[in-house]
Amino acid sequence: MARLSIIVVERDRDRALRIVDGLMSSGDHSITVIAEETGLARRIAEQRPDIVLIDAGDPSRDVLEELALVSGPMERPVAMFVDRSDENLTRAAIEAGVSAYVVDGLQPERIKPILDAAIARFHMFYKMRAELAATKAALEDRKTIDRAKAILMKARGIDEEAAYALLRKTAMDQNRRMADIAQQLVMAAGLLT
Amino acid sequence: MARLSIIVVERDRDRALRIVDGLMSSGDHSITVIAEETGLARRIAEQRPDIVLIDAGDPSRDVLEELALVSGPMERPVAMFVDRSDENLTRAAIEAGVSAYVVDGLQPERIKPILDAAIARFHMFYKMRAELAATKAALEDRKTIDRAKAILMKARGIDEEAAYALLRKTAMDQNRRMADIAQQLVMAAGLLT
Repeated sequence: MARLSIIVVERDRDRALRIVDGLMSSGDHSITVIAEETGLARRIAEQRPDIVLIDAGDPSRDVLEELALVSGPMERPVAMFVDRSDENLTRAAIEAGVSAYVVDGLQPERIKPILDAAIARFHMFYKMRAELAATKAALEDRKTIDRAKAILMKARGIDEEAAYALLRKTAMDQNRRMADIAQQLVMAAGLLT
Repeated sequence: MARLSIIVVERDRDRALRIVDGLMSSGDHSITVIAEETGLARRIAEQRPDIVLIDAGDPSRDVLEELALVSGPMERPVAMFVDRSDENLTRAAIEAGVSAYVVDGLQPERIKPILDAAIARFHMFYKMRAELAATKAALEDRKTIDRAKAILMKARGIDEEAAYALLRKTAMDQNRRMADIAQQLVMAAGLLT
């Protein structure tokens, strides 16, 4: 396992020591234990760990969602451990983006495979989110460019190819994306008419 | 927990009984135990279970990928249990779409929360895949309609709005999607010129 920067959120001192011990046996990781959840978001944002491991104990739904949120599950893998099984809590944690959600399984020798799974899960999810965002952006760009073309065709009495060429040339001259030029044109046309 | 139709893939008779026992204590499920992996794909396709639980033991990478594949992880949650931690196997299973991958955790009392997590994970993933597929299809439709419009504009010497209106009217008259009409036009134009 590559060297990881890990934040462990654990209130109980003995458990924290056992977790650190378990983590150290799987590699030369940089481990920070945080016992107090106050200010957690700031500390995680500052340290930018590769993974966050949270012992949530027996959380209420509000506490669980707050913990999931502040740990930044869209930016890094988050593995959350709880003591008790609850279908609704499980769903809430997973929908909040937690990469591994483990009931009653915080034994030091079990942590390594759970971190592996959390990392793999996170990367798969991350790739898919990136692909979705890129596809949505491409669709939006296309719609905007279409609108801008139609505006140019009408305003100048030119055909589609000429409108496309004009947008393209303007974008190249200004060293910007066609979609950005199109966006500004659509906005300006809205103001002018 | 709602009543689920569950397929359990387990070669060991004693373990199978303990798993069934653990599952039955969490609800009135319909449980089928399959001891032999041969023909698994067909049996799963016929029965269309709500979830598949596989005890993969200590699989090779080929066996693991084969098991993941035949269990249909894109159509239903699949929870896979293995005996031994291996980073590469973990990644392979998760990339194959397995919703829960658990190392050394096939204890009957631990199964219920793992199934909950697998179901929640599957639904989240499924929604995201559906959104991605819909967005990609919308983008492709738009590209095809654009191409068809350009063909019509050139062939008939009409402007964009007229080309759009013509495609739209043809689709309505034939009670079909505009993108399908556009697709046929693009294909036909390719053959004709």
